Amino acid sequence: MRNIKLTVSYEGTDFHGFQVQPGLRTVQGELELALQKLTGEPVQVIGSGRTDAGVHAWGQIVNFHTASRIPTEKWAIALNVNLPQDLVVRAAEEVPESFHARFDAVGKIYRYQIDRGMFPDVFARRYAWHVPYLLDIEKMRKAAEYLVGELDFTSFCNAGTPLEDKVREIQQVTLVERGNLLSITVQGSGFLWNMVRIIAGTLTDVGKGRIDPERIPEMLQALDRTKAGVTAPAHGLTLIEVLYPRT
Amino acid sequence: MRNIKLTVSYEGTDFHGFQVQPGLRTVQGELELALQKLTGEPVQVIGSGRTDAGVHAWGQIVNFHTASRIPTEKWAIALNVNLPQDLVVRAAEEVPESFHARFDAVGKIYRYQIDRGMFPDVFARRYAWHVPYLLDIEKMRKAAEYLVGELDFTSFCNAGTPLEDKVREIQQVTLVERGNLLSITVQGSGFLWNMVRIIAGTLTDVGKGRIDPERIPEMLQALDRTKAGVTAPAHGLTLIEVLYPRT
Repeated sequence: MRNIKLTVSYEGTDFHGFQVQPGLRTVQGELELALQKLTGEPVQVIGSGRTDAGVHAWGQIVNFHTASRIPTEKWAIALNVNLPQDLVVRAAEEVPESFHARFDAVGKIYRYQIDRGMFPDVFARRYAWHVPYLLDIEKMRKAAEYLVGELDFTSFCNAGTPLEDKVREIQQVTLVERGNLLSITVQGSGFLWNMVRIIAGTLTDVGKGRIDPERIPEMLQALDRTKAGVTAPAHGLTLIEVLYPRT
Repeated sequence: MRNIKLTVSYEGTDFHGFQVQPGLRTVQGELELALQKLTGEPVQVIGSGRTDAGVHAWGQIVNFHTASRIPTEKWAIALNVNLPQDLVVRAAEEVPESFHARFDAVGKIYRYQIDRGMFPDVFARRYAWHVPYLLDIEKMRKAAEYLVGELDFTSFCNAGTPLEDKVREIQQVTLVERGNLLSITVQGSGFLWNMVRIIAGTLTDVGKGRIDPERIPEMLQALDRTKAGVTAPAHGLTLIEVLYPRT
């Protein structure tokens, strides 16, 4: 069997998330449907991780095993013909049999976008959270620094997250302004359920002056979801890149 | 009667253009509906010009006359509550009785966006024309220079344009690259039907090497629509700004 790795982008608006759910339109479901049509085989797609309903991806990574002999350079073209407009395969490559999109991932980069305009930007409304406030970016940057490192993010994940080790390493949090849009880019070794959305929500509370940046360490130490800020809505979040060891 | 000027943005995807058409969803129609709801009066909206079905606007200008006493700073907020998500009033101001959004406009700035990626960018697909070619930007810039000036644009407007003076002045054509996106920004005194889309289509033909930049002058001189390049699709076009004399 060949093992094919795909780089996939999707607009999450009209998907019920990544993972297959019976009767619902999902990214995995649409990919598997297109692959089955193309190869004639039942194909199981392995994603680097789930994304929730409404969350977007620029560089989601998936892999699948197939007996098909379609040349590597033809996969993206052939799949895109069979995929809906809000789901695009950007690249395909053949990888070693052992490659696993989830188990081999060593990091991810997410971007959370905020639209600070007084009224929503019609062109950004599907991809940015509308927060019509004057945000103090320097305070947000200060707060973000406390989130960098190998830390227990229990306070920064959905309270319904299964019992597991909640230590993750965040390598970088970057805030970039472009016009009314503010991008919060977070790079980490791995992320818990809703983690980036809670980070974005908490930083926004800091920007509004509702939370002092110096309070982030005690939020982390509390190991209690109720101590951190709000969960920012799904539609501002985009999975930008999945990182694998250089081979 | 008061005269109110609005700055309006809209995503053209789901509109049958700007101008009211019975039974169809249009920008003018939605604005008049929201104004009627808000003021209780039948209100007629005057736009700076029509935009075709699928064309977007960031800074369309409209005005209307009303007896309503709603304070100037409340119009945008009150209207946005009554407007659909793809149509946003960005600003409102009270202007002299004589101001007319169309007759007083002295220029417009349009932007045409092209997505040069091998596969369509899911986030740009509603706002950019997908042209998966390596375009020669320098040749496109050279061709664009020939379009600057006070010229007869008969060859660069829809053949169905009513008989009228087709001399317009283009002050500037600017090409800016950002990743796979290429923006062609055109500033002019006024525009004929499909003029920016034919300019964008022709420049794209130049970029592909199908048309030599030096052939633009003869295209203009021919005064014949069939001599210029293709009409680029509506969804890549956005009306950015309408210019009025400083008052």
